[in-house]
Amino acid sequence: MSDLRALIINCTLKKTPELSNTEALANKVITEYHKLDVNTEMIRLADYNIKHGTSSDEGDGDEWPQVLEKIRACDICIIASPIWLGHSPSTVQQIFERMDDVFYNKELKDKETRQFFTYNKVAGALVTGNEDGAHAVVSHVLWSMHEIGFTIPPNANSYWVGMAGGDKNYTDGGGEKHVYTNKNNLYMVHNTVYMARLLKQHPIPTNLHELDIMAKKMSK
Amino acid sequence: MSDLRALIINCTLKKTPELSNTEALANKVITEYHKLDVNTEMIRLADYNIKHGTSSDEGDGDEWPQVLEKIRACDICIIASPIWLGHSPSTVQQIFERMDDVFYNKELKDKETRQFFTYNKVAGALVTGNEDGAHAVVSHVLWSMHEIGFTIPPNANSYWVGMAGGDKNYTDGGGEKHVYTNKNNLYMVHNTVYMARLLKQHPIPTNLHELDIMAKKMSK
Amino acid sequence: MSDLRALIINCTLKKTPELSNTEALANKVITEYHKLDVNTEMIRLADYNIKHGTSSDEGDGDEWPQVLEKIRACDICIIASPIWLGHSPSTVQQIFERMDDVFYNKELKDKETRQFFTYNKVAGALVTGNEDGAHAVVSHVLWSMHEIGFTIPPNANSYWVGMAGGDKNYTDGGGEKHVYTNKNNLYMVHNTVYMARLLKQHPIPTNLHELDIMAKKMSK
Amino acid sequence: MSDLRALIINCTLKKTPELSNTEALANKVITEYHKLDVNTEMIRLADYNIKHGTSSDEGDGDEWPQVLEKIRACDICIIASPIWLGHSPSTVQQIFERMDDVFYNKELKDKETRQFFTYNKVAGALVTGNEDGAHAVVSHVLWSMHEIGFTIPPNANSYWVGMAGGDKNYTDGGGEKHVYTNKNNLYMVHNTVYMARLLKQHPIPTNLHELDIMAKKMSK
Repeated sequence: MSDLRALIINCTLKKTPELSNTEALANKVITEYHKLDVNTEMIRLADYNIKHGTSSDEGDGDEWPQVLEKIRACDICIIASPIWLGHSPSTVQQIFERMDDVFYNKELKDKETRQFFTYNKVAGALVTGNEDGAHAVVSHVLWSMHEIGFTIPPNANSYWVGMAGGDKNYTDGGGEKHVYTNKNNLYMVHNTVYMARLLKQHPIPTNLHELDIMAKKMSK
Repeated sequence: MSDLRALIINCTLKKTPELSNTEALANKVITEYHKLDVNTEMIRLADYNIKHGTSSDEGDGDEWPQVLEKIRACDICIIASPIWLGHSPSTVQQIFERMDDVFYNKELKDKETRQFFTYNKVAGALVTGNEDGAHAVVSHVLWSMHEIGFTIPPNANSYWVGMAGGDKNYTDGGGEKHVYTNKNNLYMVHNTVYMARLLKQHPIPTNLHELDIMAKKMSK
Repeated sequence: MSDLRALIINCTLKKTPELSNTEALANKVITEYHKLDVNTEMIRLADYNIKHGTSSDEGDGDEWPQVLEKIRACDICIIASPIWLGHSPSTVQQIFERMDDVFYNKELKDKETRQFFTYNKVAGALVTGNEDGAHAVVSHVLWSMHEIGFTIPPNANSYWVGMAGGDKNYTDGGGEKHVYTNKNNLYMVHNTVYMARLLKQHPIPTNLHELDIMAKKMSK
Repeated sequence: MSDLRALIINCTLKKTPELSNTEALANKVITEYHKLDVNTEMIRLADYNIKHGTSSDEGDGDEWPQVLEKIRACDICIIASPIWLGHSPSTVQQIFERMDDVFYNKELKDKETRQFFTYNKVAGALVTGNEDGAHAVVSHVLWSMHEIGFTIPPNANSYWVGMAGGDKNYTDGGGEKHVYTNKNNLYMVHNTVYMARLLKQHPIPTNLHELDIMAKKMSK
């Protein structure tokens, strides 16, 4: 195995061991990461006690610090998500609320360049649903991941949704044999791996701290 | 000057030479690109006769082919946009409607790898408004640019919006001296330039055609 | 026939007489409006020369004034739309850009109450696509229609989308026999008709002008 | 006092008694409801233990049933929300996840007409933030409220956001004296009250059950 690590955060609302269609899709993707010698870890956010808030530790049994540690350790972070009412679930948004701290917390920045710890990591998105809304979720996820410091390569998402009003999901609706989804799985895996390796060898050198000083001068 | 080229597409609804606040913000960014030896070109989409449709040439005086040629020639593509009713203007969405052809048109793909011509190009977003909606526009722009093949580095956007219900715009509302906007301008310029150079030296090798064949096998 | 009028604005990018799947869905809905004695008119926005801008007449052959006249005359306004890249097409956003004038133009407001001319009219949304994005389009349309003065009753939308990556559209994908879509068509027609009749008999009396004066006093 | 009841659900991430800017805005609105003889109740969702899920009672100490009871009892439901990363917070989305049950649970529908219990109730949205994203949150909230059965009158939202990158919030940024926000507060209060009274006197008669049967026939 190589030194690359992919973290898949499954944002299903269901705790382990309930059946998660999103997990089934993620498992297909994990198989492909393994073929490229990438280490993987998958967690379900709903298995953790994530407190409301925007700091990195809300105390009182808050288990976000455990998730944050995993994000710090990964090179590729894939947000895997269901869709509710055409929209990302609360679990996805909780990730961004808690990651908001990268803008304020010195512990989450490089001492010299003030880059967020997420710089030089790569993000992707996986979505399953039985109706509609995959593009909306992917758009929300990838934009937010970019905003908090991740790099987004092309074709960094894959999804499966059933017919409107239908009761078929990924696992019982033929998702695993859906060629469009399988194709996008492969695109995402190959592009995120290449980009993560590239950034590991050639990290972004931008010194945000120096640019901050320059911006202040410009703004007088 | 280096061989890097940045194209800024100003999506204001106003034709040249009407005052465009978005252009004023873009000009600040252009100055920074020049400091990093990047060639720039700025166009206003509203100056072109862009026909409704989703092909690369709708005929009948359609001037999209001229814009498309510029996108093909650039390394960095910045979509600069106003906000209308909290949303991207029709001009922004016209770009994505016309670029939809990258999914179907062989002329817009690499012969061997079937990569879209946008692979190894970098995207960013600039937004001005007098009320609200910058994040919504950036989210729409960056996600769509990713979807059609561009790479999105971190901090690849900058914006200025005035107070709700106000009548102040970027040029008369102090936008040029707004430190937050100036800071993000610099982050965006430095990160897009680094990423464009990196991808020029180390282009993404993913062979989409081979992955398509693999996906078909998996889906039987 | 009653005195109620429903206007359906088909926002397909294709001009008449090209096949429009959105029109096929709209025709089903029109049949139901007729059963409830509602007069209907359907237009394609792409058949009109709509200039870029935010005023009610951009001159130079601008045909928006003809569309505006139809909106003024209707009681129910249904925006019927395809989806491009998971998003509303430029044609839909053009409607909201041009309607932005209701916030500024006295000709578009009631002399006494300053209500926008859209007050006491009812809106709905219809969407077709071959992939994903219906909720995103409906959300954009209904929120914007509300923002410019329309009332939105419950279940005021209906849609059909095919499978991701598929090549099936409403007309060749069985849309006309899709029970979920047909059910929502009926809900939308019945609720918009009831609400339009109710508002015709009991128009909203809110005097925006008086509230403006009150707000100014409160804000000192 | 009249028999009309307005419920304001404050979706701040902070528990009572932490300062909530959203609450400060909501208090202004509550004063106006009282002037129109409307009873009001305000709750903070973060004070309740809302379990992940999409049913009406997830058990294990789930306190959603208490919130649901309040929604059932109200005539006007206002979602008051902060903005995080340009987006609605997880708390807002939790409401829609839990309300998803109206589509499936007979207890949440009228026995005869199968209307959701939310029919004939009216919705509105209030937003505060220190940057940008109000329109995105309002759009998400009002569309979702409509989708689950509420009616949306015109001008049913109000917001205040500070300057980008600023550290000023509603309470210390002059929000209470911002004329645009105060004006929209009044529009929202007057329109929601009128619409709620109108629907109480003239409830929507649509029989969804009969339309379901009709739709099935049409779809054969």
